[in-house]
Amino acid sequence: MSVYFDYLSGSPIDPRVIDVMIPILKGTYGNPLSLHRIGREAASILEQSREQVATFIGASPEEIIFTSGGVESNNLAVKGMLTVHEYGQLLASAVEPMSVLQSAQALESWGFSTTMIPVDANGQLNLLSLDKLLNKFVRLASVAWVVAETGTVQPIEEVAEQVKASGVPFHCDATLAARLFPIDVHELNIDALTICASTIGGPPGVGALFLRHGVRIRPVIDGGAQEMGRRAGRENLAGIAGFARATELALSERQIRFSKLRELDRCLKSRLSEIPDLIFNVNLPSRAPGILSCRIEGMESEALLMQLDEAGIFASPASPCSAAVRKASHVLKAMGLSDEQAASTLNFSLSWETEMQEIDELIEVLKSAVERLRAMSF
Amino acid sequence: MSVYFDYLSGSPIDPRVIDVMIPILKGTYGNPLSLHRIGREAASILEQSREQVATFIGASPEEIIFTSGGVESNNLAVKGMLTVHEYGQLLASAVEPMSVLQSAQALESWGFSTTMIPVDANGQLNLLSLDKLLNKFVRLASVAWVVAETGTVQPIEEVAEQVKASGVPFHCDATLAARLFPIDVHELNIDALTICASTIGGPPGVGALFLRHGVRIRPVIDGGAQEMGRRAGRENLAGIAGFARATELALSERQIRFSKLRELDRCLKSRLSEIPDLIFNVNLPSRAPGILSCRIEGMESEALLMQLDEAGIFASPASPCSAAVRKASHVLKAMGLSDEQAASTLNFSLSWETEMQEIDELIEVLKSAVERLRAMSF
Repeated sequence: MSVYFDYLSGSPIDPRVIDVMIPILKGTYGNPLSLHRIGREAASILEQSREQVATFIGASPEEIIFTSGGVESNNLAVKGMLTVHEYGQLLASAVEPMSVLQSAQALESWGFSTTMIPVDANGQLNLLSLDKLLNKFVRLASVAWVVAETGTVQPIEEVAEQVKASGVPFHCDATLAARLFPIDVHELNIDALTICASTIGGPPGVGALFLRHGVRIRPVIDGGAQEMGRRAGRENLAGIAGFARATELALSERQIRFSKLRELDRCLKSRLSEIPDLIFNVNLPSRAPGILSCRIEGMESEALLMQLDEAGIFASPASPCSAAVRKASHVLKAMGLSDEQAASTLNFSLSWETEMQEIDELIEVLKSAVERLRAMSF
Repeated sequence: MSVYFDYLSGSPIDPRVIDVMIPILKGTYGNPLSLHRIGREAASILEQSREQVATFIGASPEEIIFTSGGVESNNLAVKGMLTVHEYGQLLASAVEPMSVLQSAQALESWGFSTTMIPVDANGQLNLLSLDKLLNKFVRLASVAWVVAETGTVQPIEEVAEQVKASGVPFHCDATLAARLFPIDVHELNIDALTICASTIGGPPGVGALFLRHGVRIRPVIDGGAQEMGRRAGRENLAGIAGFARATELALSERQIRFSKLRELDRCLKSRLSEIPDLIFNVNLPSRAPGILSCRIEGMESEALLMQLDEAGIFASPASPCSAAVRKASHVLKAMGLSDEQAASTLNFSLSWETEMQEIDELIEVLKSAVERLRAMSF
């Protein structure tokens, strides 16, 4: 048996995306910067992809900078938009991805600091605190739309409005929101927005940063004319075209994917409630469907996940990245959870292709694993 | 007709490399950081690839940092190794790639500067000048082994020895050398070395930085546990495995590829000499085979390349990157060429798969194009 509940850590590439990638791997080898026909063929795929990705979020093609993924896009937004100034502050939600927080930390010795916007027990941003923290030293505010570790959805329209009203540029990591919600960067009045391919059925290692016309940025990767001088380096063209195809599919199938995810999520949540002493980390009507963070008090997730793994069921601790460095998730701590509570947290993430039967299998195995571990601890 | 002489700008991916990539695109979707079986499958491909790439250059697997290409590797080496210090100098050859030079320029406002090591008319480094420039403010010396725009081969053993004798860390961009020469990072006593996939039959958008054990570096892309904390972001796993396969093939086929390139290069050079007033920009016995930079005095390369393009023959100006931004190549200027001479420069680059007949076709078309343009200018 192999039942996968870890789609946020890694997702299969949509076969229709692979169908676009393979002919490019096999046949399009020109450099988009070359002026001859072989180069122009590559440039034409690149620019068509740029248009598709732009359409996905309501941007213009020139506002799209292709990168090697969401993490690089976040680095580019934070480092690039802070360092056009000589010093200043990043204002970031306390539940931002590490790629945002550590990008600002990396600039600490050069006069940049980070102020955290506190969150409540559900991981939601406090809009009153945000208002108080917006001051003239803030060069950039960054708030992720959906929190990967918990599925918390931020009130992004209100956040964007408040930030922009104070004249501060606003960046949003929308890598997960892009799976679920329609995005219109101009309606949101946003300055920079991170998306990536791997959360919407595209290949890993490809992403983009939307950067509004006229917003100043410094590159993170210097040294070439690619991406209008904003991101140097030879393009992963097959990956970029795959990303573009994935945005097309996400656009046309968004509603059906969302409905499926919501239905599966409801089912999973209700079935998980059958497990004794299981507590959900987020209790919000607006939680992103397909991400369920929960814990069984007093039971380490590591032991439980090993039991699941043996039975062919794959889920994640609070965050695979924190687990890899054996640190408690900063997101859960910001929500007020203790180290123990963070260490007992499980993250189940779904795909629109998850089947109801897989949820049944998970619950069956989970119940007996919990019983077994309970018995062992007595 | 379609005859390609621009392999340095972009090269086809070896079909045997694509054969490794496709099953991964289709079937390996786990995150190498995940501890469960699906994650471990991905991690195992990643670590096997790391071993293969390490073997290619005589390194240990932990000394390999995967990146999105040679340009990112150069950024990581220069920015990462300079910024472990509070201030200081980069010592770089005047013919370094822009990704090295602009990486240091990007740090100018934070107390870092660049000193150029002058080159002679063939683009070769002056070892006496190098010796004089090595002082206690130099934090890193960077010299590319082979100059892309000219094929100039630097005396890299002597450079490495001199730099290391002065106690300065040494970085070498070996993206082009990797096509031609055996590389042993420990024999060379080098601290950091850039390689990439696309010059050896691998996919574009994948590279690595070798970083010797114990050498300090700061990430350029922050925010994750990947690559032992030295480069954050979800891995382009198919691309990395393709890169690894390309290093295997480059290792086993190096001698035959080199011989073929040398033979083709001799032929191309001798045939180009038939063109009246054609001057080679580099006259060295040790020039890298497969890169021929030349000019026809008084004739702009742009016009000539358009004529070739129409006849289905594809070559490059001095550098596609400089052409894209309409600036004279800094490499040719450092060698003492005028703006006009740089603007009349053509770069023909070969593959080991180029056929003799293609050279005949090039020469035929080139001769008549030159005659036509000459006639037009009278």
